[in-house]
Amino acid sequence: MGLIALIEAGFMVAPFIVSLAYADQARLGFGITILVLGVLGGLALIRKPKQTHLQAKDGFVIVALSWIIMSLFGAIPFIASGYVNSYVDAVFETVSGFTTTGSTILTADIIDTMPKSLLLWRSLTQWMGGMGVLVFVIAILPKADGEIIHLFRAEVPGPEAGKLVSKLRNSARILYAIYVVLTILEIIFLSFKMPIFDAIINSLSTASTGGFSCHSSSIMYYNSLYVEIVISVFMYIFALNFTLFYLLLMKRFKEVFADEEFLVFTGIVILAMFAIALDLYYTAGGTYSTFAECLRHSSFNTLSIVSTAGFGTVDFATWPTFSQAILFTLMFFGGCAGSTAGGLKISRIIIITKSGVKEIRKSMHPKSVNIIRFNGQPVDQSVISGVQRYFMLYMVLFTISVLLVSISNSHGSFTGINESVTAVATAINNVGPALGTLGPYSNFASTSIFTKIILTLDMLAGRLEILPMMILLVPKTWKK
Amino acid sequence: MGLIALIEAGFMVAPFIVSLAYADQARLGFGITILVLGVLGGLALIRKPKQTHLQAKDGFVIVALSWIIMSLFGAIPFIASGYVNSYVDAVFETVSGFTTTGSTILTADIIDTMPKSLLLWRSLTQWMGGMGVLVFVIAILPKADGEIIHLFRAEVPGPEAGKLVSKLRNSARILYAIYVVLTILEIIFLSFKMPIFDAIINSLSTASTGGFSCHSSSIMYYNSLYVEIVISVFMYIFALNFTLFYLLLMKRFKEVFADEEFLVFTGIVILAMFAIALDLYYTAGGTYSTFAECLRHSSFNTLSIVSTAGFGTVDFATWPTFSQAILFTLMFFGGCAGSTAGGLKISRIIIITKSGVKEIRKSMHPKSVNIIRFNGQPVDQSVISGVQRYFMLYMVLFTISVLLVSISNSHGSFTGINESVTAVATAINNVGPALGTLGPYSNFASTSIFTKIILTLDMLAGRLEILPMMILLVPKTWKK
Repeated sequence: MGLIALIEAGFMVAPFIVSLAYADQARLGFGITILVLGVLGGLALIRKPKQTHLQAKDGFVIVALSWIIMSLFGAIPFIASGYVNSYVDAVFETVSGFTTTGSTILTADIIDTMPKSLLLWRSLTQWMGGMGVLVFVIAILPKADGEIIHLFRAEVPGPEAGKLVSKLRNSARILYAIYVVLTILEIIFLSFKMPIFDAIINSLSTASTGGFSCHSSSIMYYNSLYVEIVISVFMYIFALNFTLFYLLLMKRFKEVFADEEFLVFTGIVILAMFAIALDLYYTAGGTYSTFAECLRHSSFNTLSIVSTAGFGTVDFATWPTFSQAILFTLMFFGGCAGSTAGGLKISRIIIITKSGVKEIRKSMHPKSVNIIRFNGQPVDQSVISGVQRYFMLYMVLFTISVLLVSISNSHGSFTGINESVTAVATAINNVGPALGTLGPYSNFASTSIFTKIILTLDMLAGRLEILPMMILLVPKTWKK
Repeated sequence: MGLIALIEAGFMVAPFIVSLAYADQARLGFGITILVLGVLGGLALIRKPKQTHLQAKDGFVIVALSWIIMSLFGAIPFIASGYVNSYVDAVFETVSGFTTTGSTILTADIIDTMPKSLLLWRSLTQWMGGMGVLVFVIAILPKADGEIIHLFRAEVPGPEAGKLVSKLRNSARILYAIYVVLTILEIIFLSFKMPIFDAIINSLSTASTGGFSCHSSSIMYYNSLYVEIVISVFMYIFALNFTLFYLLLMKRFKEVFADEEFLVFTGIVILAMFAIALDLYYTAGGTYSTFAECLRHSSFNTLSIVSTAGFGTVDFATWPTFSQAILFTLMFFGGCAGSTAGGLKISRIIIITKSGVKEIRKSMHPKSVNIIRFNGQPVDQSVISGVQRYFMLYMVLFTISVLLVSISNSHGSFTGINESVTAVATAINNVGPALGTLGPYSNFASTSIFTKIILTLDMLAGRLEILPMMILLVPKTWKK
């Protein structure tokens, strides 16, 4: 955790330099936070632990605490600069960044007048959280696999965290290398049509599928088909399992194009794009003049939601119900396992669906064996049970959160059960925008403090896939 | 199935007599339907099947087809009388009856001017569907357990259909005896404060947790605290597992008061009542003048929703968000297994919650054994897996239904994703009223034909717990 503090300080140097260059209001905040993180991190590192072997539980606890500490310190520059007035708001914004959610408590006028340094920090938190900070630690630390596998498992999303190569440290390095290269590629493509600063911000937010942009009107600001296509393509890429890119590099093309999650994900995206485009064309008649324009908006927003980036080009909270229902469903799906996207992950959706269908077969042939195949191979029963139990836990957390968020919602901070349900959905799935009055061109500024705290915890729970956060609540975790 | 036709004809005799007594418009419809059902049922019974041993699959197919046939014929009197103009509407109303949902396509003016015979038939369909028609057949047929266990399992809701006594036929008789006695008790209690006809109608609809009433203003019509208390108590009773009443009769009180599902259900009801009452008192300030009045409305409506009866005394679609969120959650919970209530059933909710919590323990101690206790006993792994798979199937069906219902919702038949989600929730859980513009003092008349068909299928799937309906869709079912 000391190392995490140092890494956060390291990342903060970039916005600090920017704030010095522009001599903006945020420089003091960045300077102090870097100093505090540096001192605390350094002190923590001096004390060497006797016991370095980590168990599963330790992995979860370290990851959860690291993320909480990162968020609490990462929020300081927002407060110190004076652009955010409440610490709860600042933590919400920072957690929204690290978890790559992209919901904001900043109103449009603040986003548009904020110093570049703070905008950079917002997007950097997303980029750090996207691939995972602990994975970064693993990439740089010379440790044996047995000691760090539980850190890796606790931070990389999906039902099974797969190693790419035999050594975990090398796997982590390959993952980060792909991440960096793809981010730079997007910066280059975007820089043709926008200032380099904007290109960096939007690329950091795309790579992490976070969705913070540098203008209150998000990607609508550029009003450019080229920009939308580039970002769409990269949102799609970053929602794929990074293992696929490694396989591509190894020229193992067959495995890529036979990957069930890849195929199902691509199928869902194409289906949703056309279904929404048709709905917009035939139902919201006149809003967009041609089918091509409908397809342009449906494509961008489908990818924005399913990749859980949450960039906006139009206000889909005003779209017809069918389109909204599709986007709402996609929020829960999310991207592929092993990507930077949130949501339940397509591989879990596949296993959940197959489990359900299995129940039909089981009722016809009660003695049939309970085998579920994924990528043609029978899935281990423990993985299936794990996915099923995870889904149960997810639904329990979702239900409780909706009830809690509704309490202060009742008191007029925002309206209706639609907002309660979609606010929790967008937080827990790390998407960003909700529906109704919390849509893509609105913000979470007016929600109550209590709601902000619940949503903050939901974002963390969603990014870390619930267990690390829950384990902190078990008294046994803190014994001995 | 021939027998089912005859039983339906038998039940229809009562409203037929009423319609003759009042010489109303429905008599011809009832007469013809009884004749057709009698002839078809008789013909079907003449042909004796060679093979009488039933497999699990056969049980599902017979139950599903029986319910579909019952609904298609049960709809005729509505059409023939001229009070319903479309056959799809009439089938919706009949299925809403048999499945004890209680959603209606009848507008307020039609309900208030309809002949008594049709109102009686509406409530009778609920009463027949509540305990199950196949269970009725089992009660009267002299068959061995091995031949009929699969019929019983397919129609009685809950994760495990338990026999009360060693012989299934006797179990079915005991269930129906309890059902009849409790219904008569309620009629007696209600008859003190309303006409005997009203008392019968409301008792039939309470016993089945259906919720069809004989006035468009439902129970609000009587404006009587006494009536509300009587119906509340009986809604609570009919949402309990009927096995408990048998245990009470056997004086096995300890088992009743140690029953986990009973205790959890009662706890949830009390908690919800007070949470909603507090929300109404503090948030909807002024709507109801005293806390006692808030508690009165919260109690009745909590029980109305959780028992899935769906009677109305106030329009909770106008309540504050927290109250609506609680009611929305309770829709999914439903009553206890082995009751006439719908929903997922409390025992499933308990197992789902314990499965989720298990995942936390499992992540701390990966090698721990996956034991879940219910009523102090370890639950068989096959039951847990069954509940988990059922929940998956349920969520898949729910999601697809919301998407389908949203298609025509997009075309303006009713508004918003709130209505799409709650309409499907109310149908699949057999509750009755939805939220928003489909609340308790509204109706489904204005929804599109496509939406009505989807909701009709959802009601059937919900009442029969999905599998029987799904098995009809598997091509293999129809082979050989």
